[in-house]
Amino acid sequence: MQKKMIAVVLAGCGHRDGSEIHEATLTLWAIHKHGAEFQCFAPDIPQHHVLNHLTGKVMNEERNVLVESARIARGKIKDIKQFRKEDFDALIFPGGVGVAKNLCTYALEGPQCRVNDDVARIVKAMHAAGKPIGALCIAPVILARVLGAVELTTGQDQGTAQDLATMGARHTSTAQGEITVDRTNKIVTTPCYMLESRVDEIGNGAENLVKAVLEMCVR
Amino acid sequence: MQKKMIAVVLAGCGHRDGSEIHEATLTLWAIHKHGAEFQCFAPDIPQHHVLNHLTGKVMNEERNVLVESARIARGKIKDIKQFRKEDFDALIFPGGVGVAKNLCTYALEGPQCRVNDDVARIVKAMHAAGKPIGALCIAPVILARVLGAVELTTGQDQGTAQDLATMGARHTSTAQGEITVDRTNKIVTTPCYMLESRVDEIGNGAENLVKAVLEMCVR
Repeated sequence: MQKKMIAVVLAGCGHRDGSEIHEATLTLWAIHKHGAEFQCFAPDIPQHHVLNHLTGKVMNEERNVLVESARIARGKIKDIKQFRKEDFDALIFPGGVGVAKNLCTYALEGPQCRVNDDVARIVKAMHAAGKPIGALCIAPVILARVLGAVELTTGQDQGTAQDLATMGARHTSTAQGEITVDRTNKIVTTPCYMLESRVDEIGNGAENLVKAVLEMCVR
Repeated sequence: MQKKMIAVVLAGCGHRDGSEIHEATLTLWAIHKHGAEFQCFAPDIPQHHVLNHLTGKVMNEERNVLVESARIARGKIKDIKQFRKEDFDALIFPGGVGVAKNLCTYALEGPQCRVNDDVARIVKAMHAAGKPIGALCIAPVILARVLGAVELTTGQDQGTAQDLATMGARHTSTAQGEITVDRTNKIVTTPCYMLESRVDEIGNGAENLVKAVLEMCVR
């Protein structure tokens, strides 16, 4: 049987201005561990900004989301414009604040945020095709904004939960490593670093999410 | 009992010009999974160069090893000059070509390479104190250059094995996930991306290395 193929969408490289590195790596690790394959994608756009991850301060430079995401993907990454839903069994978004700055504007505009056109297109396409979608950490805000009435978790933060409700989604409170599964919409979410977590807890959350996503893949 | 504390030395963020992200992340994951704690360190120096990980080409910009390593460490990282051997039970170096450009000059000068003064100092200090040292991927070249007659693996590449011999070390050939343990010198090494590997195989190598390192910690 052909291996299941998962598209993983990255938002840069680093939790403050890009994809959270542990969440992204442990998602790829869990996909391989459970016998599936991945292809990484990212938008070929400038990062919203570059933050010094030691000091938290803005650095006066420009970086590109696709080019920086290639660090996590070891160069094996494609422009999100090349994504075709026919090629994939599922779609997963690791988290990181960069997801809420580069893939959508949630970190800047809250529940009225805009979602990158290509990101919105592929979420709608996979959902319409009945294929599962996973989202870690803050990435569920994209699914709430694009799909509306879906069941999600971002952990235990009341402000984020309220924002998800404003966007039309239902929020379930979860602890480290736990997942929320919306079986009707084939959506799996897990809080990861939305909660204070050890790295092995991030591994548990990513692995539980990947297992649930793979179980919902239709062949 | 107090948890074992492991120092992890990073070399930037990205396998071509810094630390290999999967190896570094899965080292931190394995340390937490096996009940220990970590503190990341990196030298506060300019990177040898910045490579575009999509194209492989040199980018006309400067980045700092400590600042970029902070992306992997989520900001919880210290200048290697602050390392004190009294505070740690063991020392681990994840791999990546940046290790051979920023922590030493092996990628540029081969077996006659120079090792960063602070890196050499802490390797010698931990070895003299009888505390275990782990090194993944290409990072064993540092141990060969600093300590000489130790037993190491970097996988199956004959050229690297010959260089290690020139530096006075003994090389053992290994497959994905396997480790080489030098019990006399308390050194553990594993090939990781020195071999073509899936991400879960990197996890196996990092976990086997971390387990062997923790077993050799004296309390």
